[in-house]
Amino acid sequence: MNDLLKPFIQVNQPLIEQQLDSLIVDIKAPAQLKEAMAYSLQAGGKRIRPLYLLAVLEELNVQNKDAIVVASTIEMIHTYSLIHDDLPSMDNDDLRRGKPTNHKVYGEALAILAGDALVTLAFGIIARLESITADQKIKLIDQLSFASGAEGMVGGQVLDMHGEGKRLTLEQLEEVHVNKTGALLSFSILAGAIIANASEDVVNALRKYAFHIGLAFQIQDDILDIESTSDQLGKTAGKDVLSEKNTYPSILTLAGAKEQLQKQYDLAMEALVTVDLHNGLLEQLANYITKRSN
Amino acid sequence: MNDLLKPFIQVNQPLIEQQLDSLIVDIKAPAQLKEAMAYSLQAGGKRIRPLYLLAVLEELNVQNKDAIVVASTIEMIHTYSLIHDDLPSMDNDDLRRGKPTNHKVYGEALAILAGDALVTLAFGIIARLESITADQKIKLIDQLSFASGAEGMVGGQVLDMHGEGKRLTLEQLEEVHVNKTGALLSFSILAGAIIANASEDVVNALRKYAFHIGLAFQIQDDILDIESTSDQLGKTAGKDVLSEKNTYPSILTLAGAKEQLQKQYDLAMEALVTVDLHNGLLEQLANYITKRSN
Repeated sequence: MNDLLKPFIQVNQPLIEQQLDSLIVDIKAPAQLKEAMAYSLQAGGKRIRPLYLLAVLEELNVQNKDAIVVASTIEMIHTYSLIHDDLPSMDNDDLRRGKPTNHKVYGEALAILAGDALVTLAFGIIARLESITADQKIKLIDQLSFASGAEGMVGGQVLDMHGEGKRLTLEQLEEVHVNKTGALLSFSILAGAIIANASEDVVNALRKYAFHIGLAFQIQDDILDIESTSDQLGKTAGKDVLSEKNTYPSILTLAGAKEQLQKQYDLAMEALVTVDLHNGLLEQLANYITKRSN
Repeated sequence: MNDLLKPFIQVNQPLIEQQLDSLIVDIKAPAQLKEAMAYSLQAGGKRIRPLYLLAVLEELNVQNKDAIVVASTIEMIHTYSLIHDDLPSMDNDDLRRGKPTNHKVYGEALAILAGDALVTLAFGIIARLESITADQKIKLIDQLSFASGAEGMVGGQVLDMHGEGKRLTLEQLEEVHVNKTGALLSFSILAGAIIANASEDVVNALRKYAFHIGLAFQIQDDILDIESTSDQLGKTAGKDVLSEKNTYPSILTLAGAKEQLQKQYDLAMEALVTVDLHNGLLEQLANYITKRSN
């Protein structure tokens, strides 16, 4: 099943890491600020968003040397959101992926500024690309701003905060996730289509795929919190139940959440079928996401 | 002397306020987030950055209906930087322009997110403009990212933090200001030139003017802290001396700071003379900045 995905990840993950390093190393900024930015960028993770962008290009048989740069700017935006989310006034997390969070190492002020610098840099990097047209850059910036701002990721974070301690409906929970994590994941997929100059049909199908796979990703996260050990997850398992967090299992039961996961997976795959993109990397990434154990 | 400036400000300041309101009102985001964004955007101030952009266009005899929108995005970036600067982990200010700071009203988490949403929205608004070309948008986004990120405003904020409690040289103090406040002010002026499709000569002259007038602005700020009353300033006067802050007067003496102010003013005006832009709004704005009492 994963005959395409494994080599794809093995080739591209190191390229993404390299690209992330090189985007920071050349900027003319105070050393400690650069260090704080690089610290969180280099903290690892699956790099699922940049991988998705590159996978779309591969599926559409388009090569473009700016693709990996755009992929990395999405990871910069994701990283800035984690730095700010971890702050004491937000989730107050001391550890992320087993390492001290940014503010634990550099202090709150520098952590806030490192996040600010990352989001600002991401837009500038896209504006300075050389292998895509000005119109493509504008589309990317337009959509990235939507996906990561008040109408997407930041708005989702606010909804999430307001939902704490309240019982959400399934619809409300979905609204949180569609914005907080779904919007940026969707953008990764859409960005691949923009760089590849994909047809409107393909763009629409990929948008649908992205929407459903984004929800599937989140449902699997919720299920893993219940079914996995802390060792497997690399973070404390069972935390959602203890903190009475709104999750798919808390609203639908565990069995209901698994059904919902399958439903979202099926809808994602149906979208791919319409444009004949269902037998490749995007299917395997969908499997990877819905069957992952961490 | 101010025969052009007064009517210019009277006409344009209300248009800027209107524009700022309308940029927020239509976004689809959680109500409290929009409220927090609008609260700080509507907190007033001289709107010197947007006015500068519009003044450049007027001096170059160019009308463009996107100009006021770009002008407002600069004010959004300025506003986000103030929200984050005021946070407890940064300057810990409870009041700004006589009103409670954003985090005092909405809490730290929402204040951080309102700032994040403003900076992200600014780039998206520029990408979605309709009266300038894609190339102009890209130039604006490229330069705005530099001016407001690690290589500009955010970097300057880090330098300022690191300079606290140390004795800076004049050169080091200048580096703080050139980045922390100068870069975004310069961008306002440059953005006007980009929208007007100004010639290279004009762009270069305006860059020089902007550099020197940015420093002049800051020197006048330092002088006002000593020579004005709290009533005149709308904030506590004499705070710099009490907190042993690095300022032009602390390094150069008050008389030396005034000399330096005149020097920067002269250099700014010299740059304008080379492109015959020294007898209008830009001269009057330079006078306004260096002779203002708050």
